[in-house]
Amino acid sequence: MKLVIVGGVAAGASAAARARRLSEDAHILVFERGPDVSFANCGLPYYIGDQIRERHKLLVTTPERLYARFNLDVRTRHAVEAIDRAGKRVRVRDLESGREFWETYDKLILAPGAAPLRPPIPGIDLPRVFTLRNLQDSDHIKQHLVRGVTDAVVIGGGFIGLELVENLVLRHVATTVIELQDQVLPPLDKEMSTPIVQSLIEHGVTLLLGDSAERLVEETNGLVVHLQSGKAIRCGLVVVGIGVRPENQLAVACGLAVGPRGGIRVNEHLQTSDPDIYAAGDAIEVMDFVSQTATQVPLAGPANRQGRIAADHVFGRDSRFRGTQGTAIVKVFDRTAAIVGMSEKVARRTGRAFRSIAIHPSDHASYYPGASPMTLKLVFDATTGEILGAQAVGGPGVDKRIDVLSLAIQKRMTVFDLEEAELAYAPQFGAAKDPINMAGFVAAGLLRGDHPQMDVEAACKAARDDDMVLLDVRTPEEFSRGTIPQAMNIPIDELRSRLNELPREREIAVFCQVGQRGYLATRILRHAGYRAVNVGGGYQTYRLFWPQGDAMSH
Amino acid sequence: MKLVIVGGVAAGASAAARARRLSEDAHILVFERGPDVSFANCGLPYYIGDQIRERHKLLVTTPERLYARFNLDVRTRHAVEAIDRAGKRVRVRDLESGREFWETYDKLILAPGAAPLRPPIPGIDLPRVFTLRNLQDSDHIKQHLVRGVTDAVVIGGGFIGLELVENLVLRHVATTVIELQDQVLPPLDKEMSTPIVQSLIEHGVTLLLGDSAERLVEETNGLVVHLQSGKAIRCGLVVVGIGVRPENQLAVACGLAVGPRGGIRVNEHLQTSDPDIYAAGDAIEVMDFVSQTATQVPLAGPANRQGRIAADHVFGRDSRFRGTQGTAIVKVFDRTAAIVGMSEKVARRTGRAFRSIAIHPSDHASYYPGASPMTLKLVFDATTGEILGAQAVGGPGVDKRIDVLSLAIQKRMTVFDLEEAELAYAPQFGAAKDPINMAGFVAAGLLRGDHPQMDVEAACKAARDDDMVLLDVRTPEEFSRGTIPQAMNIPIDELRSRLNELPREREIAVFCQVGQRGYLATRILRHAGYRAVNVGGGYQTYRLFWPQGDAMSH
Repeated sequence: MKLVIVGGVAAGASAAARARRLSEDAHILVFERGPDVSFANCGLPYYIGDQIRERHKLLVTTPERLYARFNLDVRTRHAVEAIDRAGKRVRVRDLESGREFWETYDKLILAPGAAPLRPPIPGIDLPRVFTLRNLQDSDHIKQHLVRGVTDAVVIGGGFIGLELVENLVLRHVATTVIELQDQVLPPLDKEMSTPIVQSLIEHGVTLLLGDSAERLVEETNGLVVHLQSGKAIRCGLVVVGIGVRPENQLAVACGLAVGPRGGIRVNEHLQTSDPDIYAAGDAIEVMDFVSQTATQVPLAGPANRQGRIAADHVFGRDSRFRGTQGTAIVKVFDRTAAIVGMSEKVARRTGRAFRSIAIHPSDHASYYPGASPMTLKLVFDATTGEILGAQAVGGPGVDKRIDVLSLAIQKRMTVFDLEEAELAYAPQFGAAKDPINMAGFVAAGLLRGDHPQMDVEAACKAARDDDMVLLDVRTPEEFSRGTIPQAMNIPIDELRSRLNELPREREIAVFCQVGQRGYLATRILRHAGYRAVNVGGGYQTYRLFWPQGDAMSH
Repeated sequence: MKLVIVGGVAAGASAAARARRLSEDAHILVFERGPDVSFANCGLPYYIGDQIRERHKLLVTTPERLYARFNLDVRTRHAVEAIDRAGKRVRVRDLESGREFWETYDKLILAPGAAPLRPPIPGIDLPRVFTLRNLQDSDHIKQHLVRGVTDAVVIGGGFIGLELVENLVLRHVATTVIELQDQVLPPLDKEMSTPIVQSLIEHGVTLLLGDSAERLVEETNGLVVHLQSGKAIRCGLVVVGIGVRPENQLAVACGLAVGPRGGIRVNEHLQTSDPDIYAAGDAIEVMDFVSQTATQVPLAGPANRQGRIAADHVFGRDSRFRGTQGTAIVKVFDRTAAIVGMSEKVARRTGRAFRSIAIHPSDHASYYPGASPMTLKLVFDATTGEILGAQAVGGPGVDKRIDVLSLAIQKRMTVFDLEEAELAYAPQFGAAKDPINMAGFVAAGLLRGDHPQMDVEAACKAARDDDMVLLDVRTPEEFSRGTIPQAMNIPIDELRSRLNELPREREIAVFCQVGQRGYLATRILRHAGYRAVNVGGGYQTYRLFWPQGDAMSH
């Protein structure tokens, strides 16, 4: 067996190591265009920010070590430039010497990765405009920073963009983020990104949402970024982080099938339309496990698993890739945001009948020091309660809840299963009713009809249109510190004795701070014959939608 | 409906609040013997250690607040002393006034909790000997500490005992732990408790394992604890934390069924043998979800869920308690230990055909600052791979992995499912191959036969008996810093070229530091025709079994 692998970073390196474990005999040849194999892509922003100080830490291994350990023939700075499928061979160029040669294969695994997108605008190729794909990109950005760049523009407010922003700020670089969408972290529902926006602002970052760069102009010691809005921003460097496109040129040129967004098409064994050619990693189109539709998810975890599975199948194993859930997480300064599965906006697009809830628990028992708040949102099937997606934003413990929910989604668990989850509780780690249980209770209560809920946007609209009464059941102190406009206030503990103050003929949208008192109030009101629903997530969810402003003025 | 609830802490308070949410009409009466309702039991040790400074933080709520919020009639300092099942009434004593009265019920929920065990030894009732069940116990212990106690003995090295030890040490009290078993945290497999033992020793705690108190003698300003071993320890106070027994007197006296260890018997709806009487919380016998045998698990999480389920069924809901997995966690100084489901020793006792593996990953990507090691152990069915139990010990991230595995056990997932888990990865939170995935790979490799493994105890025995060759494939530097006695050393990177140094006729037990290089070495050797197995978890697992000593001398 002669196995040729194109690309030696995540999927390629995993495939090569797995192949060797499965066969001592195979001739395994890896061609990597860049100078490094198997480097820690996800660490690049932190190397720029000097949070990771030693460059070598990002080099997971070297060709020499891969030879010694795995008997792998790894050639860096070698680009595969063509595939001759009929002849089962690839044309390779040694980028150092310029020499070209053909190499035959029995099986070929394509793991070329994805390339950063660059918007086709004037000035995008200027020397101070960077993308961030490899160690060399990091080196170049660092060199500029060391030379005294004091302000930077990051184009793109997604996961990598914001990781980079944190690290630029840590280096005292005044940073502006330009994001086309009206929110950061576009995969999240907008309100879930609010705490991240607040954290960015607290750390002095300038956020320009709903705007885009139109052209970049060089000037003495820097650049000017001209925006669609007419604004112009001077800065010492620009980093573009607006996403990636699959490196599919090789596959397209030899006639392999690719998807509409360019991802190489594969079956569950990761075979392309040519069964002797596999593809894995950021270059492929994969199945979204929740929606069962084709997608592209450039993430390290799936890439590693795909490399392994492709190697398995090359050596006769029946391994299958079950698809991806798009599990992603990012730390931005002191806050963390994470998502798995469908957001509410994606669920809306699919047309699936779904419901969603949000809660605002502490990461651990509030009586123990250091408890920190988070918001946890679930999207689930309106009938079966199957969990379709989850998002969380907060501090410590966000990663834990998303991982638990990721496993729940993998097994197509329901919100009813979450009610029954038995999670590890000591006061440092959770609560007797963990946020996962609480999310289950609230979602299950909604589906069972025990806990009728409406979302805060609909409640505000209904109040504005005079269709509903807004009732704040928090204390007068909480009420006076800020409430939803037009709300009346009857504290929960007085509600039973003050029912007569409420109109019988109109529907009542009840809210409290996070939803718990509102739930009880709803129960009390409905029992007394009022039509009442709880505003899910309460005032805290309202503040995620309207952090400064006033819903009524919109 | 008149619902009477005996006990107002975890299960009782949950049942009462849930009952009110289900019915505004019901008359709900809660009798609590102690002065407080719904206090944070799990916070008591931290209140003693002043990590929680404000006593009121432990009081989740008060009878007054429960009345205002939930219209609950809560009577503290009221002991229910008898149940008249035929008359459907309970006899109550007001502990303040001494007045006795009968109270009728339609449904009765027993949530009396569990009482700390006190060994029947001379001196156990001396004034400086404490248990820790409620706020008053904490107050008493604190008073003694404030008066200048400088040394303490904790009898019992279980979860609560060690939480207390941490807090005594934080108050600069020289502390000795006496534990009957030859390990701390007896639910864990012994080797998994080693890092906790090390942490205790590092913090100056004296550990007396395999020993027990025989009598306690008062002397001026203190006590002397005389041990079974003949040792005698002077101290200012003793705290006994050797477990609890269900408060079943009421149930037994009125003829309700109890299990062999005293837990009140209930069905899945938490009805006792009298269908109008429910029981919930620490006083009941429950089903172990994994082994499907009866057990008692005094934990806050299940107690809260049980209270809720009992109330549900009282009001006609079909809610069921699915059993417990015994998920438990403890932080001891800088380390955390956690368990869910079956330990290896329990699996052995059940006679079930199982396998186990242990890995030693970092909690997050090692290239990012602050990565900290953990040991993660899985116990799984030898045929199906169903996960039967998991244990983890380390620092941050232990809680996360145990929670993920707890959910896996809840859905009867297999080690093969863990290979496919898509967990949230950014370098602060995990790895492209998360410890959960790694555990899945190693366990699945064992079951598929790709990765033959043996445990370190068996390997040491076989080497001692000259049945096997022990081969250390780490570097000469690692080898020289310490290895398993009798091991020979061929570094993995030289193995392919030095095969001739190994005997063909004998079986080879290969090991490295954590198991990964050993796995590859095993593959290389078997491919070359040698009989080789990998010693699971490598030298690091060896050091958990023999932290100081030498396996060969045992």
